[in-house]
Amino acid sequence: MLSKNKIKQLRLLHLKKFRRSEGLFVAEGQKLVFDLLDSGMKVREVFCSPELITTVEKKGFNPKNIHSSQLVDLKKISQLKSAPDIIASVQIPEHSLSWEEIAGDLCLALDGIQDPGNLGTIIRLADWFGIQHILCSEDTVDLYNPKTVQATMGAIARIKLHYGNLPDYLQRANEMGIPVYGTFLEGENIYSAPLSPNGIIVMGNEGKGILGSVEPLIRHKIHIPNFPANRKTSESLNVAMAASITCSEFRRRMTPRKP
Amino acid sequence: MLSKNKIKQLRLLHLKKFRRSEGLFVAEGQKLVFDLLDSGMKVREVFCSPELITTVEKKGFNPKNIHSSQLVDLKKISQLKSAPDIIASVQIPEHSLSWEEIAGDLCLALDGIQDPGNLGTIIRLADWFGIQHILCSEDTVDLYNPKTVQATMGAIARIKLHYGNLPDYLQRANEMGIPVYGTFLEGENIYSAPLSPNGIIVMGNEGKGILGSVEPLIRHKIHIPNFPANRKTSESLNVAMAASITCSEFRRRMTPRKP
Repeated sequence: MLSKNKIKQLRLLHLKKFRRSEGLFVAEGQKLVFDLLDSGMKVREVFCSPELITTVEKKGFNPKNIHSSQLVDLKKISQLKSAPDIIASVQIPEHSLSWEEIAGDLCLALDGIQDPGNLGTIIRLADWFGIQHILCSEDTVDLYNPKTVQATMGAIARIKLHYGNLPDYLQRANEMGIPVYGTFLEGENIYSAPLSPNGIIVMGNEGKGILGSVEPLIRHKIHIPNFPANRKTSESLNVAMAASITCSEFRRRMTPRKP
Repeated sequence: MLSKNKIKQLRLLHLKKFRRSEGLFVAEGQKLVFDLLDSGMKVREVFCSPELITTVEKKGFNPKNIHSSQLVDLKKISQLKSAPDIIASVQIPEHSLSWEEIAGDLCLALDGIQDPGNLGTIIRLADWFGIQHILCSEDTVDLYNPKTVQATMGAIARIKLHYGNLPDYLQRANEMGIPVYGTFLEGENIYSAPLSPNGIIVMGNEGKGILGSVEPLIRHKIHIPNFPANRKTSESLNVAMAASITCSEFRRRMTPRKP
């Protein structure tokens, strides 16, 4: 049984302030909760319909932290259109920022992404293309926002996000000789520009793009050309789509060709 | 002044049934409404704050169809988080399907896309890459859904969507020798697969992918490889992101290289 008080506590986790103070976030639905149980992330409590209890137990989860719950109660906590039959509270992990790892790999940096859905799909994209670290400006939407968590489709368990001062991060990258890329209208055609196997790709805010304080720290300006050139088109691509094309092109260069 | 009755009429256009019977849809916000006024689409009426009236008139729009409106009334019609200062009712255009145009160009086909935001960003993507026609299965979300209209960011004025029986469309394409592509886990690596300058790229439903009735009509199965190969990753990419990468790769092959 879910007590009124527990429902209230879980609902408070929809707010960043309470996620921070409790060190917890909420995950909804079988796909996501089972992925998190399998991933090694620290799931605190599971609330699910009676039929799912055995499945959760089989994943080695401590039975005393599994709570049989009615759909009507899960619905009170859920932020999904149709209420899920399982919800979990999960401990927010602590990631330390390893510049050695950043230097040797391809990473993303997000300058003020505001839409939780965009952040979530970018995390899913990073996971697809083996990008393990994402540097985020402090005003980037919170990773543990329920909409972001859902949009990651489980990738949240594998990708490390680091929130901090983005210009400071990029300054350090420049000092260490890590190539920093960003997409700009006046950038070099991404299909023919030289792209390195490692580096940081900066993606800008949905409306404002890359901020003036960040732009000077980007040494490699690239551009996704529209087709055919000079035809009237949309002003820009959605940031998650631009990120997709950019990451794909970096990885394409690294993908072994068939003989 | 917006009458109660007019507000009610405009709100009814949020429903597909009424859009169909009235032949109208609603567009919100300066960016979108101004784009539509400039595009040659048939804007029926404009409702805006008094300060915007002159701007709308300057676009050659008939002053008798411009209605000075209070924000509080526009808010009653709006589906956006923050109410816009301009809303327009726009005539739904009739597009005829030209197989000659389809045959000579790159097109998209959508097999049951359900999320209005995904459809909207795919239309914006099509616009970026000069894809003018999108074939949609009958169960694909409605193009004139308010969320789709907003997500297109104006691209709705330039792209032609054709709703109909998708297997019939693809059957016809096969008979005409138009190459039909689709993304599948067992497909050929998109980075090395032969891709033609024309053809139809089929994208599947968010959850179910490409349906069994459609799959046999796809002669060219392609795949976006994750990186590095064989690493544990997300099961799939979001459909709009997969569409982005696929369209980008088709257009990359066509983009002139610098000498």
